[in-house]
Amino acid sequence: MKRSGSYSVALAEELAKKQRSISVAEFFEKNKHLLGFDSPTRGVITTIKEAVDNSLDACEEAGILPDIYISIRKTGADTLKVAVEDNGPGITPEQVPFVFGKLLYGSRFHQIKQTRGQQGIGISAAVLYGQLTVGHPSVVISRIGASFPAYRFQVQIKTESNEPEILGREEIPWDRLHGTRVEIEFRGTLAAKKRLIDYLRYTSVVNPHARLLVDIEEERLTFERVSDDPIKSPVAIKPHPHGIEIGQLRRMAAASEEFCEPFLIESFSRVGKKTALEICQNAEIDTNTRISALSPGELKSLISAMQRASVPAPPASQCLSPIGEDLIRKGLEKEMQLDFIAARTRPAGVFSGHPFLVEAAIAYGGRLEPEGPAQVVRFANRVPLIYQPGACAITSCVMSVSWKSYGLSQQGLPIGPILILVHVASTNVPFTSESKDAIASIPEIEREIVLALQEIGRDLKTFLSRRDRNRLIEDRARAVCAVIPDIAEKVAEIVELPVPDTSPIEGRIMKKCIVKKSGRNGKVTLEVNNHSNDKGIITIYLTSPDRGEDAIPKPDFLEEFSGEYTKVWQVPITPGSRFSATYSGNAGGSLDVRGIDERKKVVIDLDV
Amino acid sequence: MKRSGSYSVALAEELAKKQRSISVAEFFEKNKHLLGFDSPTRGVITTIKEAVDNSLDACEEAGILPDIYISIRKTGADTLKVAVEDNGPGITPEQVPFVFGKLLYGSRFHQIKQTRGQQGIGISAAVLYGQLTVGHPSVVISRIGASFPAYRFQVQIKTESNEPEILGREEIPWDRLHGTRVEIEFRGTLAAKKRLIDYLRYTSVVNPHARLLVDIEEERLTFERVSDDPIKSPVAIKPHPHGIEIGQLRRMAAASEEFCEPFLIESFSRVGKKTALEICQNAEIDTNTRISALSPGELKSLISAMQRASVPAPPASQCLSPIGEDLIRKGLEKEMQLDFIAARTRPAGVFSGHPFLVEAAIAYGGRLEPEGPAQVVRFANRVPLIYQPGACAITSCVMSVSWKSYGLSQQGLPIGPILILVHVASTNVPFTSESKDAIASIPEIEREIVLALQEIGRDLKTFLSRRDRNRLIEDRARAVCAVIPDIAEKVAEIVELPVPDTSPIEGRIMKKCIVKKSGRNGKVTLEVNNHSNDKGIITIYLTSPDRGEDAIPKPDFLEEFSGEYTKVWQVPITPGSRFSATYSGNAGGSLDVRGIDERKKVVIDLDV
Repeated sequence: MKRSGSYSVALAEELAKKQRSISVAEFFEKNKHLLGFDSPTRGVITTIKEAVDNSLDACEEAGILPDIYISIRKTGADTLKVAVEDNGPGITPEQVPFVFGKLLYGSRFHQIKQTRGQQGIGISAAVLYGQLTVGHPSVVISRIGASFPAYRFQVQIKTESNEPEILGREEIPWDRLHGTRVEIEFRGTLAAKKRLIDYLRYTSVVNPHARLLVDIEEERLTFERVSDDPIKSPVAIKPHPHGIEIGQLRRMAAASEEFCEPFLIESFSRVGKKTALEICQNAEIDTNTRISALSPGELKSLISAMQRASVPAPPASQCLSPIGEDLIRKGLEKEMQLDFIAARTRPAGVFSGHPFLVEAAIAYGGRLEPEGPAQVVRFANRVPLIYQPGACAITSCVMSVSWKSYGLSQQGLPIGPILILVHVASTNVPFTSESKDAIASIPEIEREIVLALQEIGRDLKTFLSRRDRNRLIEDRARAVCAVIPDIAEKVAEIVELPVPDTSPIEGRIMKKCIVKKSGRNGKVTLEVNNHSNDKGIITIYLTSPDRGEDAIPKPDFLEEFSGEYTKVWQVPITPGSRFSATYSGNAGGSLDVRGIDERKKVVIDLDV
Repeated sequence: MKRSGSYSVALAEELAKKQRSISVAEFFEKNKHLLGFDSPTRGVITTIKEAVDNSLDACEEAGILPDIYISIRKTGADTLKVAVEDNGPGITPEQVPFVFGKLLYGSRFHQIKQTRGQQGIGISAAVLYGQLTVGHPSVVISRIGASFPAYRFQVQIKTESNEPEILGREEIPWDRLHGTRVEIEFRGTLAAKKRLIDYLRYTSVVNPHARLLVDIEEERLTFERVSDDPIKSPVAIKPHPHGIEIGQLRRMAAASEEFCEPFLIESFSRVGKKTALEICQNAEIDTNTRISALSPGELKSLISAMQRASVPAPPASQCLSPIGEDLIRKGLEKEMQLDFIAARTRPAGVFSGHPFLVEAAIAYGGRLEPEGPAQVVRFANRVPLIYQPGACAITSCVMSVSWKSYGLSQQGLPIGPILILVHVASTNVPFTSESKDAIASIPEIEREIVLALQEIGRDLKTFLSRRDRNRLIEDRARAVCAVIPDIAEKVAEIVELPVPDTSPIEGRIMKKCIVKKSGRNGKVTLEVNNHSNDKGIITIYLTSPDRGEDAIPKPDFLEEFSGEYTKVWQVPITPGSRFSATYSGNAGGSLDVRGIDERKKVVIDLDV
């Protein structure tokens, strides 16, 4: 304390003069890295991501199959112009200034459902970044339907107040009937082009209903849709009684004119008359009191009773939109050839009252990098996460699984030609930062991720051990088959008989499909023994002078050509199936078998 | 497009109705994890951190040595009340509502200097968290000086509008002459108490001028100051011409009535008349134009000329406040016993026009965990970073250094009894998230961190190799000494003489301090040969019937007891030093030597 004598009282007053309010636009201008604008290489990915997220969300709400056009052009040594255009429902001219020219403005913040964008920050932050680094306003064109004109806006943000500033607004002719186009020029480079294309590829994997047309300088790419069903837009739900804090309840109560019971039923999901009564009773509150008349103490009893009440989990199927195991497989297959894919959509769970669900897939082999650690691709609400893998709960969960139990070697990540996909969908994805790079470590979510990984891990193990078993069996069979002809020769020598044909035995050992023709005593026999695992239909062509008129069964097709008859049977095969045909004749001629892998067939033509 | 027929035009208008503005308080209430309130265990650390940061910043600005009292009390099964009280300059009653009851309100946002808090979010977010989870307003007491009354406020935040709501304001008697106390009750647990205490310990390490008194339930801790100099508060500087974007320049220009040349000189740091002229010339702008009259194109030329101009780096010494190598060493030593510490404060650098500097220290041995990976303690503007080490540039830099070159084994982190401290100070620390857990990967900062680590790594290597060399020498010496008596015996046998005393030789080899007394021909000689590295003063007690009256040099002390005389010499020793004393007498008696490690002394008493 001895030095505090030197301190002058005026200081507190002097400090007070410097105090002032900071607009959220000023805040994010200074802290632009928090929104993913930390470098010119990253800025371009963030800008496109924000625009594409908005387009996909808008199309989803309107039930439209999204066609999104993305173009990137260099406008200077270190500046780019990005344009993103969609066939979505469009934005009314009254709303355009706010959607693009004001941070924290949007329609999805207060809704409880799964959407890509939620905070109303993304695209306006891109506009802010553009005006900060290049100084030009952004251009927005939007049209809400055939009977409405299209408008072209020049938008920027007044940083000091976080309010939109419109530098131009005009009606223009536009060939689109509805949709939105945004053009933003900013400081940026294409140094991270590979990463950008990865982002677009993975966006396409988890949005199988979307078509992305991409135009980067001279290069054109198309990510085609694999599904023609638009995503069913999730429906917003009411808050869950277990997921609410006293502060929120107090605000809801103050704004309501209802009595306690109907207030509970109407304001919360999964609360019916019975639960509402039980809650009121446990809180010792008269159901006929107006909710706004409750004292702070009574509200506390109420929330505590709400949290104790047994209420079913929130209706996740309405408000969440999983991709689904089938579309994950299709999406992955489309983008990379693979030996094996297992996908799993876990049942929905809840954390702090927010519904969520986890989907995971594991892909093996194919064109994946055969060496090195697995590739982990992360998604949140159908948006690929590109940066900060180290900070993400998905990565730590992948590393926490003991992949050795599933037949993989592991150094942190599993090693080998492996791709692991994890998608976390929620009405409120808990990101570690507003740049939405990484999912925070929430125990409920982590448990579900690990369970999903373990399930697909088991599937992979089955595949790998079957593959290994098959390899082992084949190796052994090869070894056995290699000695069979020698044994046959030796035995024939001893018993003084001709060396028999050992192919049928080899066929059985090697798991092949054997097609054998033999003629004896004026009777020709055709036999098929399928020792392979193949199923399908094989076609047998037997060409000889025999007409085969009495064949049982009859050939499916018969053709004569210069005195020879080609008899054709179409034989369905399944693993272990047999087939035989006989007819009168002298055998001879030629035998041809089609419709089965060359390596799996043994054709034996015997005239005994 | 085929499905878009089903889409109704009304949708865009319906969507428009849902659009609305989101207050920054609503935003952070929903995204409270972004500010470090993601769990009840973490909430308590974040709350204390925000309050302590504010107290330290305020004391620093006022030149006061901070005395901060922190108390934590359980108020329910899962609720805590935290109080933080300081002896800072206090806050005027007009400002209290805004400082505590409004997010994004503060005095430091627009200033370019190193401070702990900058955004005006922290403490008001804690108030918001309290009202959300427990529902009580926070209590603030503040007084700005002896001649002013103390006021007690009950503050909360109107979430919908982000405006303060004062539920009570009264004058109260307070024994403090100036200072601020804040009390916040919120949902929280003490599960992370160890982490909390670590946070306080490291806060004390990097704020050696602060005293922290901590009162957690029944436990009391004091972190004492090791320096009585208040930190010289950094001075705010003007923006640097290299660290400005076109958007900012445009705003500054619009708000100024100056001509171009004085505008440049007055608005930017390090721009003098000469530089201003050069910039205007390169931008082809008449210096006598008013800056507000420049066209957008001219402003672009101007900023491009500003960026090309050669301007010295910003005046970092004014606006940054490094801890300093000496205080880092003292701070670390105070909290843990150590064998070795090297600390380095690097010269200041600049990224995007923001001055920054890096300090690093490495500590070895002592009470540090002898096994396992090094402990990395991270600081930003004198605030310990507790969470998300994996996402932090400091961690990745520590892992990127090849510690094997400095004699350490390494698995990602170096292995062994090692503590690495890194402090990044800047006018604008680039955090990866608003929860301020991790420093973003900025190449300029990373380079400085790596350089600092390499420098202290070299110091550690010198220490370790000297220690290893000493160990090696000692091992060899031990081996040699083990055979010397045998050699002496053998030689004595051959030359038929008695076995000589080999201790002096061993002493020299083993680097010990040899004290030898010998008597011959009525003369007693006392000799000290210091072969050890020790320095200090040893005390030699020689007790015998000899009075030693003619001793040269005279004993420092002489005592008789029942016919025996104890002669005491105090002998200063340094490595390699010698001393001898002689007197008339018959030797005999006893010799005792004190003041030197037992393992380092050899006492030889010979009566030849």
